[in-house]
Amino acid sequence: MNYRRIGKYIGYIWLIEAVFMLPSIMLSLADGQQAAMNSFLISMLITLSLSAVLIYTCRNAKSVFTAREGFICVGLSWIALSIMGCLPFIISGEIPRFIDALFETVSGFTTTGASILIDVERLSRGMLYWRSFTHWIGGMGVLVFMLAIAPKDEGGRGFTLHLLKAESPGPDVSKLVPHIRGTAQILYVIYIALTILDFCFLVAGGMEVFDAVCTAFGTAGTGGFGIKRDSIAGYSPYIQNVCTVFMLIFGVNFSCYYLFLNRELKAVFKDEELRTYLAIVVVSIGIITVNIKGFYPTFEETLRHASFQVSSIITTTGFATTDFDLWPSLSKAVILCLMLVGACAGSTGGGLKCGRFLLLLKTLRRQAHQILYPNKVQVVRSNGTAVPEKILQSINVYFSAYAMIIALSFIMVSVDGLSIPTNISAVISCFNNIGPGLDLAGPAYNYSMFSDLSKFTLIMDMLAGRLEIYPILILFSHTAWKRA
Amino acid sequence: MNYRRIGKYIGYIWLIEAVFMLPSIMLSLADGQQAAMNSFLISMLITLSLSAVLIYTCRNAKSVFTAREGFICVGLSWIALSIMGCLPFIISGEIPRFIDALFETVSGFTTTGASILIDVERLSRGMLYWRSFTHWIGGMGVLVFMLAIAPKDEGGRGFTLHLLKAESPGPDVSKLVPHIRGTAQILYVIYIALTILDFCFLVAGGMEVFDAVCTAFGTAGTGGFGIKRDSIAGYSPYIQNVCTVFMLIFGVNFSCYYLFLNRELKAVFKDEELRTYLAIVVVSIGIITVNIKGFYPTFEETLRHASFQVSSIITTTGFATTDFDLWPSLSKAVILCLMLVGACAGSTGGGLKCGRFLLLLKTLRRQAHQILYPNKVQVVRSNGTAVPEKILQSINVYFSAYAMIIALSFIMVSVDGLSIPTNISAVISCFNNIGPGLDLAGPAYNYSMFSDLSKFTLIMDMLAGRLEIYPILILFSHTAWKRA
Repeated sequence: MNYRRIGKYIGYIWLIEAVFMLPSIMLSLADGQQAAMNSFLISMLITLSLSAVLIYTCRNAKSVFTAREGFICVGLSWIALSIMGCLPFIISGEIPRFIDALFETVSGFTTTGASILIDVERLSRGMLYWRSFTHWIGGMGVLVFMLAIAPKDEGGRGFTLHLLKAESPGPDVSKLVPHIRGTAQILYVIYIALTILDFCFLVAGGMEVFDAVCTAFGTAGTGGFGIKRDSIAGYSPYIQNVCTVFMLIFGVNFSCYYLFLNRELKAVFKDEELRTYLAIVVVSIGIITVNIKGFYPTFEETLRHASFQVSSIITTTGFATTDFDLWPSLSKAVILCLMLVGACAGSTGGGLKCGRFLLLLKTLRRQAHQILYPNKVQVVRSNGTAVPEKILQSINVYFSAYAMIIALSFIMVSVDGLSIPTNISAVISCFNNIGPGLDLAGPAYNYSMFSDLSKFTLIMDMLAGRLEIYPILILFSHTAWKRA
Repeated sequence: MNYRRIGKYIGYIWLIEAVFMLPSIMLSLADGQQAAMNSFLISMLITLSLSAVLIYTCRNAKSVFTAREGFICVGLSWIALSIMGCLPFIISGEIPRFIDALFETVSGFTTTGASILIDVERLSRGMLYWRSFTHWIGGMGVLVFMLAIAPKDEGGRGFTLHLLKAESPGPDVSKLVPHIRGTAQILYVIYIALTILDFCFLVAGGMEVFDAVCTAFGTAGTGGFGIKRDSIAGYSPYIQNVCTVFMLIFGVNFSCYYLFLNRELKAVFKDEELRTYLAIVVVSIGIITVNIKGFYPTFEETLRHASFQVSSIITTTGFATTDFDLWPSLSKAVILCLMLVGACAGSTGGGLKCGRFLLLLKTLRRQAHQILYPNKVQVVRSNGTAVPEKILQSINVYFSAYAMIIALSFIMVSVDGLSIPTNISAVISCFNNIGPGLDLAGPAYNYSMFSDLSKFTLIMDMLAGRLEIYPILILFSHTAWKRA
């Protein structure tokens, strides 16, 4: 195991993280929040020192780096990132307990948006900013960021591709340009541009600059931390609609935007995953709008809330404009299923992903055809090209892993004795990086009532969900750690 | 499409079904239940006439019979069987509505045991007998029965193997002896012997003969229709323990008994599926016994109820000695997960099956290893021999089909507006052929409150679950019906 190389990477990640704490320090200074400023300053110093120690001790790393080490590196990086990221909350005393602060930070970086805070508005602005910023950096991935700013394709393409793969959610990373670094840069440029666009639309609707920054971060990363007690419910219908549209935009595969910029419109409009995604959104909005008829005074409001919640859940953002836990069973069932489907591959959204869902359906259809006509060779196609059997197989195995983790976590969280809808929805919501669930884990409540064991389980679920299971699963495998 | 051949088979099945109605006629006669007797007589005559018409019109069937026609034949046979089977309930007026009678009959043949009856004790003994008998014939399969009594391997091995495969639950049918007919006969001999043994143990404990027959039928088929309002709760602890043990026995792969009879004990004790099955049972009983501590006066009673319910649920029988819906969340979560796992392949039990579950886990482990060591070729083994990739793939695809059907049915049943635990547990319970669920679908209630649409959905789920999805799924595929 190339521990030094892993150590060096983690050192660099801490370095980046420390730099990212600067805006919070400045914000706390401007607000005259001495305690918050000090806590960020101390956190930054601790992170910087540890970073320096790691980079120095691991300076002579061998260049050989296997896939195994790549995956372990990704899993450990995210844990390292989260541990340093929760320091400001603990040191300032705004979230005094370690497990709570870790939950909040992991929820941030994994773009889940599940909170243990009983009253979010009591947090200082520096903390609120930091909390929302973790969404933004977690959405596209901090390792991808590192690749984008790195001087060259350090470590060889195989490794950097692994990092990109492990951090960019979806069954397959489309290499937009021949160089990984170029791909990472393009992804971040599109990401930054869309975030700024979202910010502008929000400010144009009269939102305060600070609120708009945090909301844009939460939307772009499909995170969902609100900075108000009632999430987005208190803002104007215009703001809510802007959020609906931008959440959907950030749930689309970013390579579609790259194709769009290259004027390959036909390829974008014919993209099967995009069509599936939009079809699911439209059908779900339709069902819910009919089902919640009479819940709100006007049709416009009914449609607005239905669209907002569907968009928020399928993109795994988790903002809310209304308490959907009060909706009738059918709507709640649709919401629960949308949680599982998730957004498009290669977007900042989580979940199973529409692309995977589509391929699962296609392999199922193929299986039925094979039963009917056993002697006919049949290929599964995606956007016209045959999908290799290995990918189909890995998607099917991924799905079983996905279901088993949900079942196991559900049993563990049930130890607390809360209701079944609370437990199952909390697990599904955290594992798919959404945020709110149903019942006591619903939009009107928070995750503070769970025991430490449950919080730990949900933290692991959030990490496993964001990194698509394997980088976290492998950390628990003794095969991964034994000598080759 | 070889419609005539399919017609002929259905004709034979109706013939067998009509003959099976005789005991109920005699029982009703002995009890002096004129109305019940007449209804069975009329049902028998209708079934016989239709059978004669079908066999006569389809007498010149071509002998060519493809896999496609085999699957369609199995799907249609079960629907045909259920439609005739529900006639006695409707004609006698004991279950006047068609959808209710169909629900009850499908629930019987598929060995689900979910009932729409508000008071089961108001049914006449002839009906109770018929209801429990449907479990027994459905458990091993009526087509398998037909194969066992058929004069020779009619239709060629390929077809009969298909029938056996489609009706004997599990990922793979072990051919015990070279001839399919021989295998079918061995299976039925073991089945009958074990049922008689169960009956003897029940009668030895002081159970009335009629009760013992019905209970043995329900246990052997892993069905679960009780003939008392409180299922098995009113019987003595001895009877309850006999049921616990026999339910577990009928959940074991029948080829294990064949090996046992051939004194191949080592093969039995080393069977991985059997070990997994028993391990899950022991661990679940352990967790629940600790979790429900204090619910019952003595440790013996706690252990007895925990064992009974675990055994009842994992084997997908569905008898109850207590209302497990009142247990704490952890126990309910364990029960819910046991519903999904199910019994062993090649038993009369339903569910995903322990064998499939084990192979899913093994492919997952393989996938993780492949990520760690991409250049190493790795095979998945079951009981020491390599499992072909095609089987692994089909199991993984089966699992996605399984999950998607649950999700879709859950949404459809949610239209009624009942609680989430009710809806999800009703779907899981019916699809896995168990019977009771949670909340309003729990052991203390019944399925009468569901709308006709939900009942229809659940009927389809029961059939799809019993026949392992494809024979029912294919009926809805236009490819299956188009000319080759």
